[in-house]
Amino acid sequence: MRNCLVAQSGGPTVAINSSLAGVIQGAVDSRQFDTIYGSLNGVQGLLNGKLMNLSKKLEEIPMFIELLKKSPSMYLGSCRYQLPDYNEDDAPYAYIFNKFEKYEIDAFFYIGGNDSMDTVDKLSTYAKAIGNDIKIIGIPKTIDNDLCVTDHTPGYGSAAKYIASTLLEIGHDTSIYPINSVTIVEIMGRDAGWLTGASVLARNKYNFAPHLIYLPEVPFVEKEFIDDVKAAMNRYNNVVIAVSEGIKNENGKYISATTAVEDTFGHSQLSGTGKCLEYIIKQNIQVKVRSVEINILQRSAAHMSSVTDIGEAFRLGRHAVNLSLEGKSGVMVTAIRRSNNPYVVDMGDTDVRNVAGLVKHVPREWINERGNDVTQQFIDYVYPLILGEPVIKFENGIPDYLDVSHLFPDKFDD
Amino acid sequence: MRNCLVAQSGGPTVAINSSLAGVIQGAVDSRQFDTIYGSLNGVQGLLNGKLMNLSKKLEEIPMFIELLKKSPSMYLGSCRYQLPDYNEDDAPYAYIFNKFEKYEIDAFFYIGGNDSMDTVDKLSTYAKAIGNDIKIIGIPKTIDNDLCVTDHTPGYGSAAKYIASTLLEIGHDTSIYPINSVTIVEIMGRDAGWLTGASVLARNKYNFAPHLIYLPEVPFVEKEFIDDVKAAMNRYNNVVIAVSEGIKNENGKYISATTAVEDTFGHSQLSGTGKCLEYIIKQNIQVKVRSVEINILQRSAAHMSSVTDIGEAFRLGRHAVNLSLEGKSGVMVTAIRRSNNPYVVDMGDTDVRNVAGLVKHVPREWINERGNDVTQQFIDYVYPLILGEPVIKFENGIPDYLDVSHLFPDKFDD
Repeated sequence: MRNCLVAQSGGPTVAINSSLAGVIQGAVDSRQFDTIYGSLNGVQGLLNGKLMNLSKKLEEIPMFIELLKKSPSMYLGSCRYQLPDYNEDDAPYAYIFNKFEKYEIDAFFYIGGNDSMDTVDKLSTYAKAIGNDIKIIGIPKTIDNDLCVTDHTPGYGSAAKYIASTLLEIGHDTSIYPINSVTIVEIMGRDAGWLTGASVLARNKYNFAPHLIYLPEVPFVEKEFIDDVKAAMNRYNNVVIAVSEGIKNENGKYISATTAVEDTFGHSQLSGTGKCLEYIIKQNIQVKVRSVEINILQRSAAHMSSVTDIGEAFRLGRHAVNLSLEGKSGVMVTAIRRSNNPYVVDMGDTDVRNVAGLVKHVPREWINERGNDVTQQFIDYVYPLILGEPVIKFENGIPDYLDVSHLFPDKFDD
Repeated sequence: MRNCLVAQSGGPTVAINSSLAGVIQGAVDSRQFDTIYGSLNGVQGLLNGKLMNLSKKLEEIPMFIELLKKSPSMYLGSCRYQLPDYNEDDAPYAYIFNKFEKYEIDAFFYIGGNDSMDTVDKLSTYAKAIGNDIKIIGIPKTIDNDLCVTDHTPGYGSAAKYIASTLLEIGHDTSIYPINSVTIVEIMGRDAGWLTGASVLARNKYNFAPHLIYLPEVPFVEKEFIDDVKAAMNRYNNVVIAVSEGIKNENGKYISATTAVEDTFGHSQLSGTGKCLEYIIKQNIQVKVRSVEINILQRSAAHMSSVTDIGEAFRLGRHAVNLSLEGKSGVMVTAIRRSNNPYVVDMGDTDVRNVAGLVKHVPREWINERGNDVTQQFIDYVYPLILGEPVIKFENGIPDYLDVSHLFPDKFDD
């Protein structure tokens, strides 16, 4: 028998380790692989010889699979390395395939976003070109949910749940004073509004926050925004606004790039989108205003992950192993939604070229005409993805996640 | 029999509603009060006639006490109203005491920070001056933990738990790339470093983040800071820095006030402390740097509260009722730590004048000599306060908190 290899790439999510767990479990259950290797820091681990024996970890660490499913960020680390075109420079390819041979790798699973799918495409194309039979399979992940073909991406549901819960808590926080206030919450998403739209799920029978929602899919018009805020202030004391970091004006320019500020050294600094809207409101409306940037917490808060999301990430990892055993290569596993009520998702796959380098936007009809809210279609889409709460083990008052010290360099002795 | 009244004031915490629940439960159990009233928006509710019948809520809402204990922010709302000196203007006093009489109030419980204790002082002093026998008792709360006499304040333990857990998750997030980076996490605390110091609890057997901790109690010296960061970068790839928003330079000036930036309108804008440190690093060290401001999430994230904190907040509320029945007035209930291992806390009380308007700082000897970390004494102090995880009920994928729509104005019809 031969071996398999798995690696992770791109930005962290709280579900990407669950897909890794699914690959490991699938490989073990298939009984088709002797050893499961992990490449540290994506394909870079192959280039600099940093492979981890995951079969050994599975033996050594009690509850390894369960802990892995619930640990945030990336157990194998990440990289931003992009392979060159092999027609121009095939040196890294020769090096990588040499490693594949050395470690007797039959299947390579790469968990990542659309850049990582480009790597899957290049490696599988090269394999075919040189007549190498290795199977190379992509597994999607990104909190941004902007990958094509798949109904949604692992990591999105958990981030959406965190954002909705946080917006509810911000709604409570802002409700306490009987005076007018505006709170702007900046949410990740340079190109697509999936995460910001999910804030709509914070609304319930008493909480109407966020009262306004702005996505990058619709041009942001400052005058309309000011009118929207004024109108909301007529209805609500404390207006909460959810905004994507990537909103752009009518000329396609990022709003955050339109209000650069100068620091004391005279250098122009890009302020965040939330800060920009804060300035706009301060200039135009007499009201207490504050902006909050959820920042990297939305992609790392494993304590608030969605069981639906973590479970699907695991299934996709297992499915990737099955596809490799069926002889497929150069494909990405996908989630196919069969129905919303009951929520049913099947596993499928697609040629990675349908995904690599492409971005899936929120459909215009899922955003209201005014461009300051999402519609029921968006709610129906995202709602099932945030359901279910995991039991998180705590130790000493903080979550008990998997040790990732293998990612640290040996710079210190004590 | 007569009635009692309770109100909340100051900024939100996730434990202040648990103290309210403790007051309600204590008042019910005492069988000494007919009706328990709540004043909406602190003493302002008394001035504008917004009282809520909490005894009725207790009958109407199933699991009211349990839900209240776990709901964030302030069920009765807040105010920033400060009473004038009654020797100069006794009009609001006359009005408030008229309401006390009208509603036959025997005891008034005010849950808040050191400004609220000033209100307790003024009202109880006025009561004595006019020979009114009403009992007025303060119950502490503040995430800042800066109230004197009491060992710690309700709200602090939960915020500390959230901060430590979040720093651990940020540690995971920053660990994935094999390149140097610096992440600055700005934490609340204008005058005292209790919250920022609590970030030390994020460290475990593999996570050394935060690698540097800066509190307002020690002057911040830019040159030393740059040296600290460089030294940390020699040991760790990804350096995480926890910093209080209120750090000041050797001249006592807020760091955030030393690097004002100009917006495009030419107005000077105060940037946050985290952003300032980000600029300092960018100017002096070639490294990828990012700043994260935890902002209001640290005081509103009830889903990550400490059972120890929520339980003590409840006990303090109950104890306040007992004190009123013992005939005390003008006092604040306090937590007295008897031992750390096992952790034992008794309830006590102190004259509010020992608390009103005063600030408790982190002792200098709980901070290391260099001023870039806290000591074991700090850890021993804060550790027991974050222990225990509540079972949070979720509905539709988000936490199920108590409806606070009674705090909203009737501006809308639909």
